[in-house]
Amino acid sequence: METLSTNKAFGGVQGVYSHDSAETGTEMTFAVYVPPHADGAKLPLLWYLSGLTCTHANVMDKGEYRRLASELGLIVIAPDTSPRGEDVPDHAGYDFGKGAGFYVDATTEIWSVNFRMRSYVETELPALVAKQFPADMKRQGIFGHSMGGHGALTIALRNPDRYKSVSAFAPIVSPLQCPWGEKALGGYLGKDKAAWREYDACALIEDGARVGDILVDQGLADDFLEEQLKPELLVDACDKASIPLTLNQREGYDHSYFFISSFMDDHLRWHAERL
Amino acid sequence: METLSTNKAFGGVQGVYSHDSAETGTEMTFAVYVPPHADGAKLPLLWYLSGLTCTHANVMDKGEYRRLASELGLIVIAPDTSPRGEDVPDHAGYDFGKGAGFYVDATTEIWSVNFRMRSYVETELPALVAKQFPADMKRQGIFGHSMGGHGALTIALRNPDRYKSVSAFAPIVSPLQCPWGEKALGGYLGKDKAAWREYDACALIEDGARVGDILVDQGLADDFLEEQLKPELLVDACDKASIPLTLNQREGYDHSYFFISSFMDDHLRWHAERL
Repeated sequence: METLSTNKAFGGVQGVYSHDSAETGTEMTFAVYVPPHADGAKLPLLWYLSGLTCTHANVMDKGEYRRLASELGLIVIAPDTSPRGEDVPDHAGYDFGKGAGFYVDATTEIWSVNFRMRSYVETELPALVAKQFPADMKRQGIFGHSMGGHGALTIALRNPDRYKSVSAFAPIVSPLQCPWGEKALGGYLGKDKAAWREYDACALIEDGARVGDILVDQGLADDFLEEQLKPELLVDACDKASIPLTLNQREGYDHSYFFISSFMDDHLRWHAERL
Repeated sequence: METLSTNKAFGGVQGVYSHDSAETGTEMTFAVYVPPHADGAKLPLLWYLSGLTCTHANVMDKGEYRRLASELGLIVIAPDTSPRGEDVPDHAGYDFGKGAGFYVDATTEIWSVNFRMRSYVETELPALVAKQFPADMKRQGIFGHSMGGHGALTIALRNPDRYKSVSAFAPIVSPLQCPWGEKALGGYLGKDKAAWREYDACALIEDGARVGDILVDQGLADDFLEEQLKPELLVDACDKASIPLTLNQREGYDHSYFFISSFMDDHLRWHAERL
């Protein structure tokens, strides 16, 4: 692991690091905020997964999580959203290829070599973080935005014992039922939609996956609300499965970090209470 | 005035606007956050002046001021740091020309046409803001970072009746006594250093200018501390003039927005108490 930068912030350290990933076959960059803590202490670890086009830097710059993470004693980690580099295949659109890994392990030709973001985020990066940071791996939570909200929900639903808390800002709740998902999962996983179900929060719940509870914030002025995000599908799925879902519908808020930062504190408190 | 973007944030609106400036002869862009407020209410107005290389966007993205500005009911406005455009003269360095207006009215050839950031920030933009936003122009405060800290201090010292509060993050306190100042004021104002004094916080105080009190936060791991910033000069000047100066020296903090955002709340409260 190489340290790219560290900056003191709110009494702790915001760092940016890189390492060679065996899963993606590339160098991967990620951001970690470690709040002030006593020597030898192990702190709860909160994963933030970013949306389409983002890197580790968007939430680090605009997410406004450090003040309260410092107060609550949470480590916050933000991985990149895809492998990067000239040797990595790409696509002209913003919603597939680089910056759009969708937190899946691709199985289709071309994409399967590098686009292994599921295994990277679920397995490889946690192992590195456990070694390098003062994280209590028994107290992990996960959240994210849009594509990263999809990532957080699906990863938590597949690993309910590992992640004690889950929340999302404006998540894609069902890639099976929206154009972004059709394109990305079709591209990474092929035409057999049975293989998509483990990457679809609503389908996972239908198929029996469970978590303790879920918090979602959704802006009502979000341009992607009706065509791509469809929170009502998650409401239905949670309802049928008796999963307590808190869905906050926020009048006038859009899909941007102005929205995310406005409700960041609520999400950090949600996780802190469960970690 | 043209609206470039508006986003709801913390119950208020973060906007970005542009207008044709008579002072600079260019289109100028600025950011304004208006917190939630009752219809017809007039709110205190806090000016944030940015540092070298910045635009209106840096503090808007990374300053983390909206949460508390919303709570305290402060309008926060962030102008650009210089005129922009292909017709505006520039300089190869980051510390002179575009992005480095130093909040002066230039008097030297080439620069005097567009680089009128003093008149722009002191006179032209306030007149526009008074018309377009629910600002109580009798309750204005000003703060800034680095070059913008210099701007805030000098503008407040020259206009103590207009700005009721002033603070700075890592300000350039004496352009007469540092390389950044030598280069910029020499370039914009020429060799006669008598003309520089109204753009030097320490010289203004020596020459009799006064404000009620000053808050400064300075990181002790700031790479520019010893050669460029020299807060001890401001301590001396304030001491001799009996101006109460609160100088917080922050161990381990650098010159970045990670530092600024860490102490943003303290500065917002400082201003709110005085407005």
